[in-house]
Amino acid sequence: ASNKNLLILPGDGIGPEVMGEVRRVVEWMDKRRAVSFDITEDLVGGAAIDKHGVPLADETMDLAQEADAVLLGAVGGPKWDNLDFSIKPERGLLRLRKEMELFANLRPALCFDALVAASSLKPELIAGLDIMIVRELTGGVYFGEPRGIETLPNGERRGINTQVYTTSEIRRVTEVAFDLARKRGSRVCSVEKANVMESGLLWREEVTKMHGEGFDDIELSHMYADNCSMQLVRAPKQFDVILTDNLFGDMLSDTAAMLTGSLGMLPSASLGATDATGRRKAMYEPVHGSAPDISGQNKANPLATLLSFAMALRYSFDMGDEADLIEKGVDRVLASGKRTGDIMAAGCEAVSTKGMGDALLRAL
Amino acid sequence: ASNKNLLILPGDGIGPEVMGEVRRVVEWMDKRRAVSFDITEDLVGGAAIDKHGVPLADETMDLAQEADAVLLGAVGGPKWDNLDFSIKPERGLLRLRKEMELFANLRPALCFDALVAASSLKPELIAGLDIMIVRELTGGVYFGEPRGIETLPNGERRGINTQVYTTSEIRRVTEVAFDLARKRGSRVCSVEKANVMESGLLWREEVTKMHGEGFDDIELSHMYADNCSMQLVRAPKQFDVILTDNLFGDMLSDTAAMLTGSLGMLPSASLGATDATGRRKAMYEPVHGSAPDISGQNKANPLATLLSFAMALRYSFDMGDEADLIEKGVDRVLASGKRTGDIMAAGCEAVSTKGMGDALLRAL
Ligand SMILES: CC(C)[C@H](C(=O)O)[C@@H](O)C(=O)O
Ligand SMILES: CC(C)[C@H](C(=O)O)[C@@H](O)C(=O)O
Repeated sequence: ASNKNLLILPGDGIGPEVMGEVRRVVEWMDKRRAVSFDITEDLVGGAAIDKHGVPLADETMDLAQEADAVLLGAVGGPKWDNLDFSIKPERGLLRLRKEMELFANLRPALCFDALVAASSLKPELIAGLDIMIVRELTGGVYFGEPRGIETLPNGERRGINTQVYTTSEIRRVTEVAFDLARKRGSRVCSVEKANVMESGLLWREEVTKMHGEGFDDIELSHMYADNCSMQLVRAPKQFDVILTDNLFGDMLSDTAAMLTGSLGMLPSASLGATDATGRRKAMYEPVHGSAPDISGQNKANPLATLLSFAMALRYSFDMGDEADLIEKGVDRVLASGKRTGDIMAAGCEAVSTKGMGDALLRAL
Repeated sequence: ASNKNLLILPGDGIGPEVMGEVRRVVEWMDKRRAVSFDITEDLVGGAAIDKHGVPLADETMDLAQEADAVLLGAVGGPKWDNLDFSIKPERGLLRLRKEMELFANLRPALCFDALVAASSLKPELIAGLDIMIVRELTGGVYFGEPRGIETLPNGERRGINTQVYTTSEIRRVTEVAFDLARKRGSRVCSVEKANVMESGLLWREEVTKMHGEGFDDIELSHMYADNCSMQLVRAPKQFDVILTDNLFGDMLSDTAAMLTGSLGMLPSASLGATDATGRRKAMYEPVHGSAPDISGQNKANPLATLLSFAMALRYSFDMGDEADLIEKGVDRVLASGKRTGDIMAAGCEAVSTKGMGDALLRAL
């Protein structure tokens, strides 16, 4: 057995198809670069519900805890839309995040040169865009208690969720953002609603405090979440690293991803703390969803998942060279004009999911 | 005394300047159309803090409760940024919304033909854009209890806010959205995170239920907030009315406003319930903020505030004709090429705040 333990969770919709292309790259690595992975595959989301009645079986959770990295496709689809809240496909994903303590979600919003025209924004506003969103992923309103729906004495119902952050939750994700900024443009913009929410006020205070504790080479700014949503549309290139909480990060990272016009291109990494042995739990997934409308048709763009695998190589397996190889391969494939439907443009060559995988393998 | 009681709260930054132009239009109405208003002016935000030590004095609150309509400029600025949370300028605005029970915030995102080029989006994506965002304004995480920052036994601090919605809070704002949709494109897209938050699930259930109770001429859809942030950037014209909660509405309405490229042009109305005498409390304000960087320089665009006054004429004073007059006047001024700095474009004529007011008065 290798020391590279990878758990693949293809999930629902286009998940299995795009993951198939990762499998081919893994085989290529084994044959051509003598790097082998121990791959385990299991179910998550709707696929797990169909088999086990829950969106993530306990055995799968155990496998994820033991893996060096988890690679996830996508979860959800109309088939499971009307299930009870507590067993919907999304809960499988949220359970993985929470129990693995993957508190730092890295979402690069990068505009690929060959795809500038795919953006809804004017080319000059997004050409060269390179933002990194660091989203807190295990706290806030996603997991805060009390929560639920209750019936009041007068017969009305009341829905409750709790937004809660502690000092240490804020500090550990802030540290990730500062560290990352050092390897990039050294600027961090921290985003909350400190003018309205006390949890945002605490966030601002702690980020500011930590900045003073050895990070003053980083240029730190603060912005309200509503203003940030605006600024992303007005002048996205003003940002380097955006640091924000779970809920704001959910929306802002989707806006930022859509700015690039190529959602099918964007990977993400969710990282836990580094333990005493230097090991760090991690999960990698494309930013796009399960796209049930095109699933099973060999139409989906596999590049976001392939780039997520490249992130895994870089962050979990210390294989920066191989990650570079894949990323450069993607650049070359795009430059050669190959396009899946989502990024198709005049003058380019339409390819299928497998066709894109073929092209990447050739480029490698 | 007239029966048209208008409370003007210019607030901070550019607030007083832009409000000055409204005063001139009110005078014009008095002279030329024999319509007179009883105008009271008072302080809010930083201006109130400087005089009273609080962002809204109780006497001002009383005046607002009695007024037929409140017209507000903008609040906040660097001078008051470091004040304690509980007495910041924003709390004045939030107190007005809460105590007047202005639960429905109407934020049109309209792309003016003459200003299509000002958008960061490609012209074909936003030409003719006409979205109405209906944002719940007195509930959710803005006002939910418990809230605050507490110190834990281990010395850590914890920040808490509560997202809470009751059936009746959801229903009354939903009704406003359905009613408005009937006068427009008859489509409502309700936005929450029902996949993650129980309060969002309740929201979705109640909106759906109400739709079945006499509103099935409206085409109702549901969307997750992260997807909506994306779709606004990808294809904003897909929306007619967007119905959403306080916090999501804060971000989504700012994104939508920025899409138009002309934040300085967008008005808003905040409405309460209609009482037994047919009276409805209301406050009108521009979507833009207090813009401290250009305040006092006769540079600010007064059109958003003038259009907010037009909304007041329409919704609070039943003076649709006069509202039309102002709105058409604004169109003509724009068509004539007059531009304040924020919407300046090649080939247009730069004008000041007062210059824009002059132009509108001439157009009237
Ligand atoms: C599927 C959903 C639970 C999830 C989230 O809200 O975090 C998704 O939108 C994401 O951003 O990964
Ligand atoms: C100033 C602030 C309290 C306010 C809000 O968050 O509601 C503003 O952003 C708005 O949208 O009117």
